[in-house]
Amino acid sequence: MSKEIGFIGLGSMGMPMAGNLAKAGYAVRAYNRTRKSGLREGIVAVENPRQAAAAGVVVTMVADDAALRAVCEGEGGLLAGLPHDGLHISMSTVAPATVQALAGEHARRGQRFVSAPVFGRPQAAAAAQLWIVAGGADAALAQAAPVFAALGQGHFHVGPKPESANIVKLGGNFLIAAMLEALGEVYALGRKAGLAPAELLKIYNTALFKSPIYENYGRLAAEARFDPPGFKLRLGLKDLRLVLQAAQALETPMPLASLIHDHMLAGVARGLGELDWAALTRVLAENAGCT
Amino acid sequence: MSKEIGFIGLGSMGMPMAGNLAKAGYAVRAYNRTRKSGLREGIVAVENPRQAAAAGVVVTMVADDAALRAVCEGEGGLLAGLPHDGLHISMSTVAPATVQALAGEHARRGQRFVSAPVFGRPQAAAAAQLWIVAGGADAALAQAAPVFAALGQGHFHVGPKPESANIVKLGGNFLIAAMLEALGEVYALGRKAGLAPAELLKIYNTALFKSPIYENYGRLAAEARFDPPGFKLRLGLKDLRLVLQAAQALETPMPLASLIHDHMLAGVARGLGELDWAALTRVLAENAGCT
Amino acid sequence: MSKEIGFIGLGSMGMPMAGNLAKAGYAVRAYNRTRKSGLREGIVAVENPRQAAAAGVVVTMVADDAALRAVCEGEGGLLAGLPHDGLHISMSTVAPATVQALAGEHARRGQRFVSAPVFGRPQAAAAAQLWIVAGGADAALAQAAPVFAALGQGHFHVGPKPESANIVKLGGNFLIAAMLEALGEVYALGRKAGLAPAELLKIYNTALFKSPIYENYGRLAAEARFDPPGFKLRLGLKDLRLVLQAAQALETPMPLASLIHDHMLAGVARGLGELDWAALTRVLAENAGCT
Amino acid sequence: MSKEIGFIGLGSMGMPMAGNLAKAGYAVRAYNRTRKSGLREGIVAVENPRQAAAAGVVVTMVADDAALRAVCEGEGGLLAGLPHDGLHISMSTVAPATVQALAGEHARRGQRFVSAPVFGRPQAAAAAQLWIVAGGADAALAQAAPVFAALGQGHFHVGPKPESANIVKLGGNFLIAAMLEALGEVYALGRKAGLAPAELLKIYNTALFKSPIYENYGRLAAEARFDPPGFKLRLGLKDLRLVLQAAQALETPMPLASLIHDHMLAGVARGLGELDWAALTRVLAENAGCT
Repeated sequence: MSKEIGFIGLGSMGMPMAGNLAKAGYAVRAYNRTRKSGLREGIVAVENPRQAAAAGVVVTMVADDAALRAVCEGEGGLLAGLPHDGLHISMSTVAPATVQALAGEHARRGQRFVSAPVFGRPQAAAAAQLWIVAGGADAALAQAAPVFAALGQGHFHVGPKPESANIVKLGGNFLIAAMLEALGEVYALGRKAGLAPAELLKIYNTALFKSPIYENYGRLAAEARFDPPGFKLRLGLKDLRLVLQAAQALETPMPLASLIHDHMLAGVARGLGELDWAALTRVLAENAGCT
Repeated sequence: MSKEIGFIGLGSMGMPMAGNLAKAGYAVRAYNRTRKSGLREGIVAVENPRQAAAAGVVVTMVADDAALRAVCEGEGGLLAGLPHDGLHISMSTVAPATVQALAGEHARRGQRFVSAPVFGRPQAAAAAQLWIVAGGADAALAQAAPVFAALGQGHFHVGPKPESANIVKLGGNFLIAAMLEALGEVYALGRKAGLAPAELLKIYNTALFKSPIYENYGRLAAEARFDPPGFKLRLGLKDLRLVLQAAQALETPMPLASLIHDHMLAGVARGLGELDWAALTRVLAENAGCT
Repeated sequence: MSKEIGFIGLGSMGMPMAGNLAKAGYAVRAYNRTRKSGLREGIVAVENPRQAAAAGVVVTMVADDAALRAVCEGEGGLLAGLPHDGLHISMSTVAPATVQALAGEHARRGQRFVSAPVFGRPQAAAAAQLWIVAGGADAALAQAAPVFAALGQGHFHVGPKPESANIVKLGGNFLIAAMLEALGEVYALGRKAGLAPAELLKIYNTALFKSPIYENYGRLAAEARFDPPGFKLRLGLKDLRLVLQAAQALETPMPLASLIHDHMLAGVARGLGELDWAALTRVLAENAGCT
Repeated sequence: MSKEIGFIGLGSMGMPMAGNLAKAGYAVRAYNRTRKSGLREGIVAVENPRQAAAAGVVVTMVADDAALRAVCEGEGGLLAGLPHDGLHISMSTVAPATVQALAGEHARRGQRFVSAPVFGRPQAAAAAQLWIVAGGADAALAQAAPVFAALGQGHFHVGPKPESANIVKLGGNFLIAAMLEALGEVYALGRKAGLAPAELLKIYNTALFKSPIYENYGRLAAEARFDPPGFKLRLGLKDLRLVLQAAQALETPMPLASLIHDHMLAGVARGLGELDWAALTRVLAENAGCT
């Protein structure tokens, strides 16, 4: 593998990830729609996704399905720039259907494709502590392995279909949202009974869950610290929508996903969309008449 | 405090708990509706709850609200046997309203009362590793503390109202059920996509939750090991009903609790009531047409 | 049958019903907890339910289960006053379980019992235009028929079990609430799209439902006329609770009933309990951020 | 207006509608993907949507969004064939977003556009008894009025935005589905209590709803006559999906729509998709363990 790599998408996740690739010795050709300068040593800005993809291996980490399609298509796009046998590692949280369609495009061009969304927030990205869920052919995965090693603490190979990785990723976000929904309902009940959410959390996470993620999100919710957001409610809503689309396509009723979706939608409709998605719990408190 | 103690209810939880009190040096006067013999050293069977309560401190650990009322009321009942200033430690998972009414009865008689339901299954009870959630007056709690020390690894005092402890306990069971609901939906989605539940669990508990309770229940569900049951679905349904009753009384909508309740009810209606409550996930699989 | 009849409960429904019995030629012995005077010709106030029941046939029309039990039990109660072979016609909207228990009490005393809740609001009661749903033995029904004829425009005999009538009545209230929930969601959607609820109602009831009850409730909701209430939201909540209790007892998941219950509970928690139950639609508008 | 008219889509709805236009004196240029012959007097088959549109006024009545886009786009498409100032009347049940996009295309070409979905099944179409919900500019509506008069018993103008009509139409299908959900739950409860669905329907529609649509669908459900289907469950599912998409776009939580969607999805997953959508009630019966 060439030590050159392309990287597309320098947001709050992509920037530290590109940095870790540079630290690991890669010469990074980075493309971002808006940001062109102020990049650390080892990262060079290029003009378009096509130039990034010309490196032979290219990582994409963009905001949503539309952004992913935008950087892939067209004259200056990734698909046009990636050489035959080149590898695209798509790490964005996007719809399985989008990934499936993109995989077909790459196959038609004789290009390799791995879908590899991640678990972890910007801090984990900076510390190269992401968990990576990867779907794709064995050979492509083998080629991607050193990249994964530079970015995370481990990866899971979930089979040859790239879109499987996105189902797993969306399922994980759904599980977190389900935890928030459940905590939010119990907190509202507790508040009505004169029991402080923080005290409830301490009991439940000591006696039952012993889980850092209950600790972190449970505390955000108990203290109503929703601003600045780590992950915005309107993005959580988008992910729940993607979960439900996947569930629809696979003919799987997911009534809890529907319930959470509707509560998030109520939150966005009431003006909470730019807060942290733990503000889902505020919707539940308001429904109970807590102010 | 006398080293004599009464214990009412020798079921799968009560029996090891009474044993731990005996190990800790208490002379236990035990009452059970059906079992009168085969008790370990340090435990003596008595004829009725009244005789057990005459010890001055008495623990109850029975199946449900009706059983608790039955052992408390009447000629041979706990209320009649407990001395003035005597202490009743109620450790059953029952309705807050039942506990509140019982607290009133004790107060009218000048008796002390602590409600102290537990988190933990029979194995934890045997190992004196229960977590205890206690509600009641400070003085009563202080008197109960050595009993808690003999039974568990710690306790939480949630305030002067005994029924608060039951709200906390029911809330915890709701959180576990919510985890099962969420896992069940994700497993069904995964199965439709060709992803094995056990593989999903491994990813989610490594990358996200890192929680023993996800591990234990998630594995039961992934392997569909619902028989023999650790805790029966019909008892889980009963607890969700108690959650919803408490929520109704406190004017707190808990739509996720309603959702789970309805799925558990469907499970019971379809004949799954005697299976482990992780069989909630089977209901969700069946709804998705997985067989 | 004697032309004497007892009547217990002179609320907004009971008062016009007792009046219609008087008009039909009955000598009415009426009991009400608070109102003792100002009764029309043909109605005489008595001191307690026992004296009302002594008429040999007695109708009860009270607010809820507790009130029904209160007028039946004790020294001055209906059960004590009704002669052997006397008939109790219970027309209140109460729980099937309450009716079933009461039926047992009457049977043990050799008394007859019919449960006969009604559809119709005070205006329909005044016009003797109620619809009556009756459960009980044929002989008892035959004896009740002239009473029904004086009160309503018709009755349905739903079988020998008195509690069946209450299941049917609660089911009807559930269907009305379901209509309100559906209209409320569509109105909220319409308002977000700039379509007036009254216009939507006109279209749907012209093209689809052609139903007076859609017209009446749909208009209340479209015009947000919730005060004064025809039937209070907190009473609607009570009926939904009774529906869910019956559903639980019969092992029938009713997720829509759960959904409506939770929305009504949110309404009550937010202070809408004393408004007309069509205010359920206001909860849905608020959830959508409509003000 | 020329008495020539184009008609695209000769399915179970479109065929009788085209026939009614012919009866009303129009010379109909009909296009259907598969059917080219056996057309009644006054209807002439054309080769493609372009030729149909060349009539100057063209009606489309096709199965779904994809079909509508397919007949509009491309070389032989409606957009290419419709003259400047020509009128397209779109009567299919499709997504508001699809209609909005199409309206833009027409505007750019200086063509007129009305969206006019209908309430009514094939029988009503044959009898020219449809109800038409129309959105579009006043002038376009005025031009469409004689066409509506030939097809239905009346029309509603819901404003200048064509997509408004589709929101209204989808909302109506949602209201019908909500009625089915509610009836299905009450029927299941009744069956568990030994009460026949047909008897329940008779009571509810006599005492409460007095609605032909409750009568028709309620009877289908009570008698479990789901085959042959009038409108397939999988098409009902599609419409609920469109409702939820519109609700998402307008930031309106519609939890009852979500609930019904999930039950329909369960039905499709369990193999009921080709039955009449009243089979939604079968899903509810199965959930209650009724066989």
